[in-house]
Amino acid sequence: MNMNLPRSSILVLAANAGFFAIVSASAQVPFSLTSFTPSEREAYLAAEKTLLESPNTDRLRETHTTLAQETHVAGTPADARTVERVATMFREAGLEVQIHDIWPLLSTPISASVAVVTPEYLKLDLTERPLKEDPYSAVNNLTWNAYSASGQVTAPVVYANYGTKADFAALAARGVDCKGKVILARYGGNYRGYKVKFAQEAGAAALLIFTDPADSGYTKGLTYPEGSFSNDCCVQRGSILTLPYQGDPLTPGVEAVEKAPRQDESTVALPKIPVQPISYAAAKEILSRMTGPGVPDGWQGGLPFAYRLTGGDALQVRVEVEQKREIKRTANVIATLPGSEFPDELVILGAHHDAWNHGAADPLCGTITVIEAARGFAALAKQGVRPKRTLVFAAWAAEEFGIIGSTEWVEANRDKLSGHAVAYINLDMASMGTDFGASATPSLRAVIADAAGVVPQPGVDNSSVLASWSSKSPDPRMPGFPAMGDIGGGSDHVAFLCFAGVPSAGFGSGGSKGNSYHSSYDTLIWYWKTVGGDYQSAQLVTRMAAATASRLANAPIAPLDPGAYGAVAAAKISQLSPEDAFAATAQGEAVRAAWSAWWFRVNQDASALTHDARAKATQSLLAADRLWMDERGLPDRPWYKNTFSSPDEDSGYAAWTLPKLCRAAERGDPKAKQEAVADILERLSRLAELPK
Amino acid sequence: MNMNLPRSSILVLAANAGFFAIVSASAQVPFSLTSFTPSEREAYLAAEKTLLESPNTDRLRETHTTLAQETHVAGTPADARTVERVATMFREAGLEVQIHDIWPLLSTPISASVAVVTPEYLKLDLTERPLKEDPYSAVNNLTWNAYSASGQVTAPVVYANYGTKADFAALAARGVDCKGKVILARYGGNYRGYKVKFAQEAGAAALLIFTDPADSGYTKGLTYPEGSFSNDCCVQRGSILTLPYQGDPLTPGVEAVEKAPRQDESTVALPKIPVQPISYAAAKEILSRMTGPGVPDGWQGGLPFAYRLTGGDALQVRVEVEQKREIKRTANVIATLPGSEFPDELVILGAHHDAWNHGAADPLCGTITVIEAARGFAALAKQGVRPKRTLVFAAWAAEEFGIIGSTEWVEANRDKLSGHAVAYINLDMASMGTDFGASATPSLRAVIADAAGVVPQPGVDNSSVLASWSSKSPDPRMPGFPAMGDIGGGSDHVAFLCFAGVPSAGFGSGGSKGNSYHSSYDTLIWYWKTVGGDYQSAQLVTRMAAATASRLANAPIAPLDPGAYGAVAAAKISQLSPEDAFAATAQGEAVRAAWSAWWFRVNQDASALTHDARAKATQSLLAADRLWMDERGLPDRPWYKNTFSSPDEDSGYAAWTLPKLCRAAERGDPKAKQEAVADILERLSRLAELPK
Repeated sequence: MNMNLPRSSILVLAANAGFFAIVSASAQVPFSLTSFTPSEREAYLAAEKTLLESPNTDRLRETHTTLAQETHVAGTPADARTVERVATMFREAGLEVQIHDIWPLLSTPISASVAVVTPEYLKLDLTERPLKEDPYSAVNNLTWNAYSASGQVTAPVVYANYGTKADFAALAARGVDCKGKVILARYGGNYRGYKVKFAQEAGAAALLIFTDPADSGYTKGLTYPEGSFSNDCCVQRGSILTLPYQGDPLTPGVEAVEKAPRQDESTVALPKIPVQPISYAAAKEILSRMTGPGVPDGWQGGLPFAYRLTGGDALQVRVEVEQKREIKRTANVIATLPGSEFPDELVILGAHHDAWNHGAADPLCGTITVIEAARGFAALAKQGVRPKRTLVFAAWAAEEFGIIGSTEWVEANRDKLSGHAVAYINLDMASMGTDFGASATPSLRAVIADAAGVVPQPGVDNSSVLASWSSKSPDPRMPGFPAMGDIGGGSDHVAFLCFAGVPSAGFGSGGSKGNSYHSSYDTLIWYWKTVGGDYQSAQLVTRMAAATASRLANAPIAPLDPGAYGAVAAAKISQLSPEDAFAATAQGEAVRAAWSAWWFRVNQDASALTHDARAKATQSLLAADRLWMDERGLPDRPWYKNTFSSPDEDSGYAAWTLPKLCRAAERGDPKAKQEAVADILERLSRLAELPK
Repeated sequence: MNMNLPRSSILVLAANAGFFAIVSASAQVPFSLTSFTPSEREAYLAAEKTLLESPNTDRLRETHTTLAQETHVAGTPADARTVERVATMFREAGLEVQIHDIWPLLSTPISASVAVVTPEYLKLDLTERPLKEDPYSAVNNLTWNAYSASGQVTAPVVYANYGTKADFAALAARGVDCKGKVILARYGGNYRGYKVKFAQEAGAAALLIFTDPADSGYTKGLTYPEGSFSNDCCVQRGSILTLPYQGDPLTPGVEAVEKAPRQDESTVALPKIPVQPISYAAAKEILSRMTGPGVPDGWQGGLPFAYRLTGGDALQVRVEVEQKREIKRTANVIATLPGSEFPDELVILGAHHDAWNHGAADPLCGTITVIEAARGFAALAKQGVRPKRTLVFAAWAAEEFGIIGSTEWVEANRDKLSGHAVAYINLDMASMGTDFGASATPSLRAVIADAAGVVPQPGVDNSSVLASWSSKSPDPRMPGFPAMGDIGGGSDHVAFLCFAGVPSAGFGSGGSKGNSYHSSYDTLIWYWKTVGGDYQSAQLVTRMAAATASRLANAPIAPLDPGAYGAVAAAKISQLSPEDAFAATAQGEAVRAAWSAWWFRVNQDASALTHDARAKATQSLLAADRLWMDERGLPDRPWYKNTFSSPDEDSGYAAWTLPKLCRAAERGDPKAKQEAVADILERLSRLAELPK
């Protein structure tokens, strides 16, 4: 008997041995290899071995050094040079390359100034100090939050902690009026765009967002350049869009080609107040002059005095921001390796190429793993070993402004992706240490764990990433399996996952200690000091990306595990709607059992399956992922069409698994909750009936 | 049927209703009133009502203002004046007063200086700034740690976090050598004496102990005088003795009379290195100049830079301390109200009178409640209502130096106390808010809860301290009963509890936010700002002390509940030696059941009991508490003779309940653990057989 069951199913079956006591020696074949015939499997494993040997640390370092040589904000000449550099690398590897031009609305900083005006005049320094230890830091880049409104405000000050919904509610409850004030909020606790949104809703006139030393400065350790944590002049840049869609602000749902029909900018909810990020040295000059009442528990930061809610009338701060919003050209770089057997089926690896500054960490330590993985596959192809499915390697444009490049590409190619793309794997800023982790659509988790089983863990003899990962971070429901996070927003997988319904994952390997996020110190010097110059991390991540993509691209039937949706959905319903736990668990178990039986059946005699039968099986699997799509979209967010996964609506930080249920629970709306549960149970029921 | 059972027993019986389903209306009579005949009870409650009405907030404020008018360190002329002031207050209330002179070894500060010597010279300011908002702060008292060695050291610096045993072990593990160094340790985490002990053991040449803003400065809220938390120049004074006994260092176990035989000072383990407390402004000057490696997790404090383990060789700090150790006179003030029926049986209330500075909070907000309670009892006595047992009101000397006054008095009176003192209640720094709390010997917990049932909770209509306390801090084992802490070291109950075996409790009412502990800012102005000028807290505590003492002094049989030892011992054994949980629980239950039955029997017809039978019953109860005493003392600490309660040996912070077991567990010594459990089980077995 050939036990060709998904790994997760095998483990669940073993755990539920009272119901299905199925155990055999052949259960040792990892799930992602079960649809191969024995001879195919042998050939595949030989090629995979070559692929895993290919990522080269010297070459990774060289690629990194080339791409991080200059600051390259989207839409600038350096951005165009970066596009060419990436394209050249893909071409030199031997891949077909498309430069995919787009024309989104971007913003450009013109000037900014912040000053204490009364009781004494003090202009604050908004620049980041060049360091003799780090020549890359000598660029004197402007500090800014993209898409800030332009304007000038002089007003008293209110401190709003992290500027979350709860923080503004606490201010209101204490009678602190934000109307017409300059709000000072620290980074952390939510996506910065929501600080702007809530400040605007509270009537604020301007917003300063600062890095507090309690969150990422000296309280965490020695600061850059002696250590790796934020020094006193370090500033976090970043976009502050909070639109109900991703991508170009003016072309929701369609590609931002040069002549695209565009929304009128005045009808789009772009930020309406001046917003400026500042360092903790600058924030200190304001916070230390405040005279109002003390702060609630949890609001005190790491500056050396008691924080206060208000500055008092004597303290006036001026904020002046000038930015230009304009349509600019930028481009995705798309490299393709056509599949030999199922060329319409796609496996896509991607990371963005744009950065706020040099971007050694964000994004390039991930981008280089996409390029290095592409080189490995291309080299194999030159030896005649082409993937069965088409591999796409993408370097996305303008992610930092609002996940723009990848979104425009998905919007342009939705029909080709939906129902044909087997997986998208995102590698943004992916190599920050050797503690590997991933968040993923449930159907992708089994193949990712399988890949981790064949990638060595650096520094540990005869050990795999899987062993290290699952011991540091075990899945509480499946012993021996690593915990994978739910996937939500925040990077280039969003359009794939939420707009096109492509099974998606985000890879990231962490463990290094420090912070240079979106600052001028995100340089090669900082990266080598913090993560290391040996590129062990990037090599590990390249291997993980290559192994996962290779199994996805080469398995006769795409190794997706829709049965895993059952347990994830049941757990979420049990958490948010305990009264439905029994029904959800039963329905979740039915989904798992149905797909286990399906896999068992189709794999029973892999060698008897024709090419078309294999293609049809993959189509069945993809239909399961697509079953969660709803063309009407989510409530108030029609662009988001995936009812299983979305970014959350209130902080931008969390992943919402089963977003309609999450929203109803968050809003305390029992009717919406009931409807959401009914919809999920109905989809689970269809998912259990789907396998034919 | 008259259900005269201890409250705790009633509740346990109710909880264990399967075993003893005894419920009746008369079970509503609180435990501490069950040994009265109905007519005695009625008369008692009328008198108690008058007593509870007596504490007067204006008089409390006046007493406080008188005693906190000047700084009055033990052994100084102001100390002698304070003794006279307290004695006068007791005399004016109409009580017999004894000035109990003692001649302990005290220490006196002569001078101290701390300076950064290299790479630049900077003398640190060791003084606390006088504040125009607080005239009492203008005294410019020296900052010092009593019993420091005298000497001068210039050496490199090591930062030792809180200076706990674990912190010094962490330094050793990182290869940081403390030999010959100036150690900088922050307050908190243990009793300051242990910082000295561990620093000496690590070979340190000197120790600076500083207040870190992360622990009690601006990170907690606004600082004094605007707020109530430690400002940048605030210094915590305090003794650094860690002798294996309390009281005068030269006369362990015996009274420190003028001509007492004394130990040779050179044979007593007094501190051998210079030790000086400093402010965070001063500490900042040293810590900010350190250049060594960063600190482990949890070691970073609230100063605005990353802390480091070592200063590096370039940083040299000089510490110079001169103190004089000499035998000085000071005195306890003992006021007595003789009992009408059982004059040999004592109920004692006490708090110390000495302070490091003005001492408005520590100790006087507790001391004034002892005096105010005495006034209430004395007023009742003038109306002919004298307590059945003798009440003693004590103001202790030189607590701050090493719990000296109370210890010398107990050492002088051990035979009169042991087996005759029904209870000692300590009220050090007791009125710091209106959230009442207590730690107590198990046998006292029932009467304390009963007292809390008749004292109103300020600001809550028709509510009692019991309702407020048990809802904020419920005993997890007994619903409706407040959690009471285990009693250990740290104040004037120690000799009563650990040397004489007197059932003891410590009362304290908290909830105010701030810190002026042992600093020049512990003044009336600080207290009024922080706790309030309305003396609601002190009135509450006086009522709690009066009600508890009154029931202890007036119940025909002393309302002690030895049965409560059973559950406390069983819980402790179950926690530290789970394999003995079954035996301990059974034995604990036997103790409870035996004493419940005993109380039931003796109270069955309270009116039939003669005076002598009542006295005999009280003797039986006291024998139960005495059963935990062991004349050989605890391992390495023969002065501590109570095997149920002691201060802990490694931090001085925690109470050790069943100290031999705690020590064995702490040391990881299975043999000692086994012996300790056997000893406890044997005592529990005797305790269950004791009631006759």
